[in-house]
Amino acid sequence: MPNFSAGQLHRLGVAMFEGAGVPRAQAKQVMDLLVESNLVGHDSHGIMQIPRYVDDILEGRTKPRARIEIVRESPTTALVDAHWGLGQVVARRTMSLAIAKAEKHGVGIVSTFNCAHIGRMADYILMAAARDMMGICLTNHDPGVAPFGGRERIFNQSPIGWAVPAGKEPPFMLDISTSVSAAGKISVARAQGKKVAPGYIIDGEGNPSVDPEDYFKGGACLPLGGPVGYKGTGLAMAVDICAGLLSGRGAAYLSGDRGQGVFQMAIKIAAFRDLSEFKEEMDNLIRRLRGSKPAPGFKEVLAPGDLELRTKKVREKTGIDIPEATWREIVQTARKLKVDVGLATG
Amino acid sequence: MPNFSAGQLHRLGVAMFEGAGVPRAQAKQVMDLLVESNLVGHDSHGIMQIPRYVDDILEGRTKPRARIEIVRESPTTALVDAHWGLGQVVARRTMSLAIAKAEKHGVGIVSTFNCAHIGRMADYILMAAARDMMGICLTNHDPGVAPFGGRERIFNQSPIGWAVPAGKEPPFMLDISTSVSAAGKISVARAQGKKVAPGYIIDGEGNPSVDPEDYFKGGACLPLGGPVGYKGTGLAMAVDICAGLLSGRGAAYLSGDRGQGVFQMAIKIAAFRDLSEFKEEMDNLIRRLRGSKPAPGFKEVLAPGDLELRTKKVREKTGIDIPEATWREIVQTARKLKVDVGLATG
Repeated sequence: MPNFSAGQLHRLGVAMFEGAGVPRAQAKQVMDLLVESNLVGHDSHGIMQIPRYVDDILEGRTKPRARIEIVRESPTTALVDAHWGLGQVVARRTMSLAIAKAEKHGVGIVSTFNCAHIGRMADYILMAAARDMMGICLTNHDPGVAPFGGRERIFNQSPIGWAVPAGKEPPFMLDISTSVSAAGKISVARAQGKKVAPGYIIDGEGNPSVDPEDYFKGGACLPLGGPVGYKGTGLAMAVDICAGLLSGRGAAYLSGDRGQGVFQMAIKIAAFRDLSEFKEEMDNLIRRLRGSKPAPGFKEVLAPGDLELRTKKVREKTGIDIPEATWREIVQTARKLKVDVGLATG
Repeated sequence: MPNFSAGQLHRLGVAMFEGAGVPRAQAKQVMDLLVESNLVGHDSHGIMQIPRYVDDILEGRTKPRARIEIVRESPTTALVDAHWGLGQVVARRTMSLAIAKAEKHGVGIVSTFNCAHIGRMADYILMAAARDMMGICLTNHDPGVAPFGGRERIFNQSPIGWAVPAGKEPPFMLDISTSVSAAGKISVARAQGKKVAPGYIIDGEGNPSVDPEDYFKGGACLPLGGPVGYKGTGLAMAVDICAGLLSGRGAAYLSGDRGQGVFQMAIKIAAFRDLSEFKEEMDNLIRRLRGSKPAPGFKEVLAPGDLELRTKKVREKTGIDIPEATWREIVQTARKLKVDVGLATG
């Protein structure tokens, strides 16, 4: 399997996006986040997205030179028309806006529509944590998840991102889909010719399946919770409402090329608590969790975000393995852009 | 099984709380919410709580005449010391405060400590929905849930309440624990001498169990998600942080009689969208969900909140069955308070 350092992949991606007409500063911003996804182990949100992003730019669906526009605003809230700018560039700016509002007024919420794929929630919520705020990010997109008791795709995988600053420990960081499995994992299994675990998906008739092809042939992901999947369904619907209806993007089930609806919120910790006391309590909670007794079959208990930081430490040393199929697609896209892959990664 | 109308139970409860020294207006407020819980089918949060609430008052842990105190405040936020007032009375007032802030500034967040049991989240979030706002309520309390991969109780069942107004349809209403099962269901199974479903609990050694006794003998509830229980764990921790750490109540795992930490938020829909358009889209989403094709083994797909409203319609006609054991406890408590049960329910 091809293996590259984070720096090599970053240079290659920047060259490719510049080749597609993206200003250098924006290309760097996008690549910062894609490479970070690979480093922390979420390859589905990493450089494998480059060909899709580039195609969206070349075909005019994503418009790197668009200006984001605030269409409704109050001291604590904003509704933003992203005019199909690059998702990562837009979502960093809208999160910055939420943070600026929270800095002044304790809370800030920004809701965004006409928005391209923004990638991982983690990237934005951690911006808030770095500024001593709680950060929340919710998005919707096309439907892929059946409701509890149903067999039609109604909701998106409806991710929830939630980060909170700690003191000496890294921030609490949760970035999960509200379905049993993110869509990316189904795609990865399909690409590898593997089955998915039972309870992940149903086929088009609503029957349980372990064949990832069934997901793509009219099937759906199942909501989080298994026998209590009404809980995952409810969470997915709450996310769909916040990200889709509050932004005007519309609910996931609506057809048409609507991109992502985005809900970003920052809450200033110091509006409620003495910051150093709060951070000490965060450290204590994280350590209590990690120090708790493992269940049979487990060696240790991890805090949310631990796995990502561990993977990052490893991959910073070992480099990042890129599956052959992903690499082929990237090389083809680079060729189309007249980018010399050897030179860019050299 | 004893069966009473909502009105009978309400009168009895008001008489009992008055007998325990609670001002009539407060007694009514508490009973409004307890009887509503029974009506919608959540008996665990209904009148079976009366004996515990009364004991807490008689023993001085709950102080019906306490004044709630705002200890830190901004136009959008407040930190409240409830001074151990009646939970339902406190949480209605703090939610009203969040709503008033959101009315003026788009968003309002109130965080409360020194707070007795507030009951169902639904009661407070629906106050926001009735005012054309999204309402969110999170609480923590004593620990009862093991983290993914662990066997010690670290988190509370960490409920999430989330309500959003619709137009002609009833509001979206989600009120769930982030564990597979709420603690109340384990207690109900125990009282009935029944097993719990597999995947609900572990015993003190971390082994799967279906015997509710194991929960009370050092075991724990499992986090939402089963094989992906790290998702439920992360949600529980996010709730613990919002409700416990932001309020100063402290994390669930801390010992001592700390009551509930409460996080309540209201977000004004009109800060983002035209209200009538938004409500129409809510109606469409709810109807699309309900109209979607059921999976094999299901007759229909329900929207969050549907089941509660159906149960309410039935119980308003049939009355509310009270399990013998619960009724005995209530009668004993009434006797202690010199309340004539026959007279009060007559």
